[in-house]
Amino acid sequence: MATLQRIVESARFQRFIIAVIVINAITLGLETSPSVMAQAGDLLLALDRAALLIFVVEIVMKLVVYRQRFFRSGWNVFDFAIVAITLAPTGEGLQVLRSLRILRALRLVSVVPSMRKVVSALLKAIPGMGSVVTLLLLVFYVASVMTTKLFGADFPEWFGTIGASFYTLFQVMTLESWSMGIARPVMEAHPYAWVFFVLFILLTSFAVLNLFIAIVVDAMSAVEQEEQAKTRDLVEVDHNEVLVEIRALRAELAALRSEQAAARQGARS
Amino acid sequence: MATLQRIVESARFQRFIIAVIVINAITLGLETSPSVMAQAGDLLLALDRAALLIFVVEIVMKLVVYRQRFFRSGWNVFDFAIVAITLAPTGEGLQVLRSLRILRALRLVSVVPSMRKVVSALLKAIPGMGSVVTLLLLVFYVASVMTTKLFGADFPEWFGTIGASFYTLFQVMTLESWSMGIARPVMEAHPYAWVFFVLFILLTSFAVLNLFIAIVVDAMSAVEQEEQAKTRDLVEVDHNEVLVEIRALRAELAALRSEQAAARQGARS
Amino acid sequence: MATLQRIVESARFQRFIIAVIVINAITLGLETSPSVMAQAGDLLLALDRAALLIFVVEIVMKLVVYRQRFFRSGWNVFDFAIVAITLAPTGEGLQVLRSLRILRALRLVSVVPSMRKVVSALLKAIPGMGSVVTLLLLVFYVASVMTTKLFGADFPEWFGTIGASFYTLFQVMTLESWSMGIARPVMEAHPYAWVFFVLFILLTSFAVLNLFIAIVVDAMSAVEQEEQAKTRDLVEVDHNEVLVEIRALRAELAALRSEQAAARQGARS
Amino acid sequence: MATLQRIVESARFQRFIIAVIVINAITLGLETSPSVMAQAGDLLLALDRAALLIFVVEIVMKLVVYRQRFFRSGWNVFDFAIVAITLAPTGEGLQVLRSLRILRALRLVSVVPSMRKVVSALLKAIPGMGSVVTLLLLVFYVASVMTTKLFGADFPEWFGTIGASFYTLFQVMTLESWSMGIARPVMEAHPYAWVFFVLFILLTSFAVLNLFIAIVVDAMSAVEQEEQAKTRDLVEVDHNEVLVEIRALRAELAALRSEQAAARQGARS
Repeated sequence: MATLQRIVESARFQRFIIAVIVINAITLGLETSPSVMAQAGDLLLALDRAALLIFVVEIVMKLVVYRQRFFRSGWNVFDFAIVAITLAPTGEGLQVLRSLRILRALRLVSVVPSMRKVVSALLKAIPGMGSVVTLLLLVFYVASVMTTKLFGADFPEWFGTIGASFYTLFQVMTLESWSMGIARPVMEAHPYAWVFFVLFILLTSFAVLNLFIAIVVDAMSAVEQEEQAKTRDLVEVDHNEVLVEIRALRAELAALRSEQAAARQGARS
Repeated sequence: MATLQRIVESARFQRFIIAVIVINAITLGLETSPSVMAQAGDLLLALDRAALLIFVVEIVMKLVVYRQRFFRSGWNVFDFAIVAITLAPTGEGLQVLRSLRILRALRLVSVVPSMRKVVSALLKAIPGMGSVVTLLLLVFYVASVMTTKLFGADFPEWFGTIGASFYTLFQVMTLESWSMGIARPVMEAHPYAWVFFVLFILLTSFAVLNLFIAIVVDAMSAVEQEEQAKTRDLVEVDHNEVLVEIRALRAELAALRSEQAAARQGARS
Repeated sequence: MATLQRIVESARFQRFIIAVIVINAITLGLETSPSVMAQAGDLLLALDRAALLIFVVEIVMKLVVYRQRFFRSGWNVFDFAIVAITLAPTGEGLQVLRSLRILRALRLVSVVPSMRKVVSALLKAIPGMGSVVTLLLLVFYVASVMTTKLFGADFPEWFGTIGASFYTLFQVMTLESWSMGIARPVMEAHPYAWVFFVLFILLTSFAVLNLFIAIVVDAMSAVEQEEQAKTRDLVEVDHNEVLVEIRALRAELAALRSEQAAARQGARS
Repeated sequence: MATLQRIVESARFQRFIIAVIVINAITLGLETSPSVMAQAGDLLLALDRAALLIFVVEIVMKLVVYRQRFFRSGWNVFDFAIVAITLAPTGEGLQVLRSLRILRALRLVSVVPSMRKVVSALLKAIPGMGSVVTLLLLVFYVASVMTTKLFGADFPEWFGTIGASFYTLFQVMTLESWSMGIARPVMEAHPYAWVFFVLFILLTSFAVLNLFIAIVVDAMSAVEQEEQAKTRDLVEVDHNEVLVEIRALRAELAALRSEQAAARQGARS
């Protein structure tokens, strides 16, 4: 067990896994080329199976070593999920599942420490966005129901169901063809539709802008607080030094005063 | 009266209203699906009427409790307006008014305290934008009159009236199809139209950018001022502590000096 | 002369001019409506001529009062230019010049003090952008010459001349239809054209981003410096207060010391 | 050698090179106009050859003066590369190489000191973006392999190879026609394709946003640190001044104490 743990946590083992991920990512990329597949298809598929085997063995080893603790780390859950997806049956008809095998390349993020840090930093920005995202989802839901009711009958492809409306409104929010592609055709049937689209764009742009500002301000606040903390530390250190000096002075003065008193006492007696 | 106020302000009443809003939002969403309507249309409509009744009772209760104070809160006015809109006659021909019923879901914002805070924060950003928005509206008006005069005759769909120009210029400001969709066709009739469009885009982009910067700088200033205030408080506290020490020292020195003077006086006499 | 100056600088005169500008802006807007022109066209044109007359008289009055100093203020030059443009002959064939009359509405910016401030603030951001704008223009020139040479023969409408290339590249920079509208058709004739377009977009986006950052950082620096200056002022004031106290202490100590010396001297003699 | 170095480093030589670059940029621009070429084509080509000759001589001079040190400066390597590209054979068939001659205008950046500074400042922002760019490239690679597998067969023009997918995904990231042009047609064959496109847009927008924030925060941190350093310097200077005062006071007190002790000693003896 201890030996197994030493192996799993060794830098060499980690480097080996990184190499397997990179090679696997390349072979999966090469699989997309029909000419390469015609020449070396069997080799690529064999390499892919070998890589998958190594990942399964790696995860089994970690499960044996860490047991229930394994699932406490979000990164392990991520690795487990990605490998599990690609263990699902990959028959000829399940093109989508087969294509998900390339997600294994994302394991690079969980294995390379510097990449982990970047993603952790990105994820840290998310909680601060929570409340505005909730608001945005509410606006989207309200707007979807409204457009489905208003425009659904005339433009079933864009606004036929709540789902279709949600997608179309997402497109409108990204400003892609919102006017020439969506709003102007809708306005031919509903002349006042522009009110809805202009308000929706102003509202969502303003919300997205505030999302963005929340992240900038959060990041800047961290820098600001750190710098100010340094300044305050310096002020405190200096302050204490001055206090020590003044107290030493006071002690000296007290000593002088008691000497004098003693001298006067001696003179009198 | 006091009992009614206690009910209206109780957490249980608030949770009940939130539940009604959520259920109503779901039923209004389900109403968009023809298959669900075919199966359970009557139930959905009944639930909707029940929800509306609850909202009306809620507002009447609040009106009875708070009377004229009711309308002092912007949130109450918001609730009142949304419920009032959906009380308007909803005959078969008034599709638009019927579709506005989903706006009731926005009452979530006024009822859930955390959502209220987010919206209040967003609204706080607006006054700082006032002057740039006024400027932007002036630029839009000038540009609309100009394009209506210049291109209105040739492109009535885009620039036929001031209103149409306003909408088209809003589209140009969002950069949607501004060149391939609008400017290039216009340039075929008016070869120098690009001067107008390029200037308009540069001007409005610059103004919008400054709108945005105003919000970022406002948000950052708040953080900055708070942090600096903390630092200044620390400096002041430390300073006062030092002053107290120095003054104590001075008092001690004065005491010593007067002791000496008394001793000399005593020696002389 | 002094009377004239008093009139020109009076608040009532300014309010009168603002009113004329607003009325003139409205009449120019109404002129775009054929139905309004059919009913009250003569009145509108008469009002427009009256407004122009008032503006000319206003500027002549200012010229008489301020003489050569008149042109020292950028706002006066702006007003003069706008009125001069609309004094140019406006025959039936000069539609463009006629449409420029609405620019007079922009005089609101130079007349209303709060609008002046906003525009001054916006203009202040420009010098900081100078160097990046120069770089961007150089990149645009190089890219225009290159695309004219490479794609001009095959796509004369987009890249036929340097001017056409400049416009098309501006469109590409705004990301409007850059791929489906421009790059993909070009790639059919020149398969490697994507290298140019992707690099150009990355480069210009990066430069525009830095333009933007320059403005944000400038605005934030101003806030930061002001706040830090306040903190430093407090530190200095506190410091001086402490120094005064310590020096008073020192003076007192020196007094004590000289008293003692005098006492000893007196005792010896 | 010393004479050559003095020439190469003289301001007059630099101004001469700048003039040649500007003239060369203009002649290369004029070459794109067929009417100008018909009139003065030979002159333009002669001027171009002369400019190239001057650039070659300049670089040879610098190579002679600085020898191996020449290539230590990135700007020299940049100049060398640009001149080397345009020395390559420029036969009638090598239109692309001929069009690259205009890149020489970019030498302005390496020759004019103020432009150098701007570009250096821009380049400084790049290392801070490294990790997010790596992550973005990984996401692009994974997404390209996935779309090639999923949509490649049905949409060979957009997703036929990994390269085509990369380009199309870049277009989607810039939001150009992503929905009407790409996603909606794809959704007709693969109804759930919207999941991929919406996730890809959210993910890449979020990453690009963070890229951007990294640059803003870096720039602001620099300002913040500089200002805080000033404040801390002031605090330190003030602190030292106070310490000097207090120590002087202490020295004076010590002197008084030893005087008293000496006086008492004298009195006793």
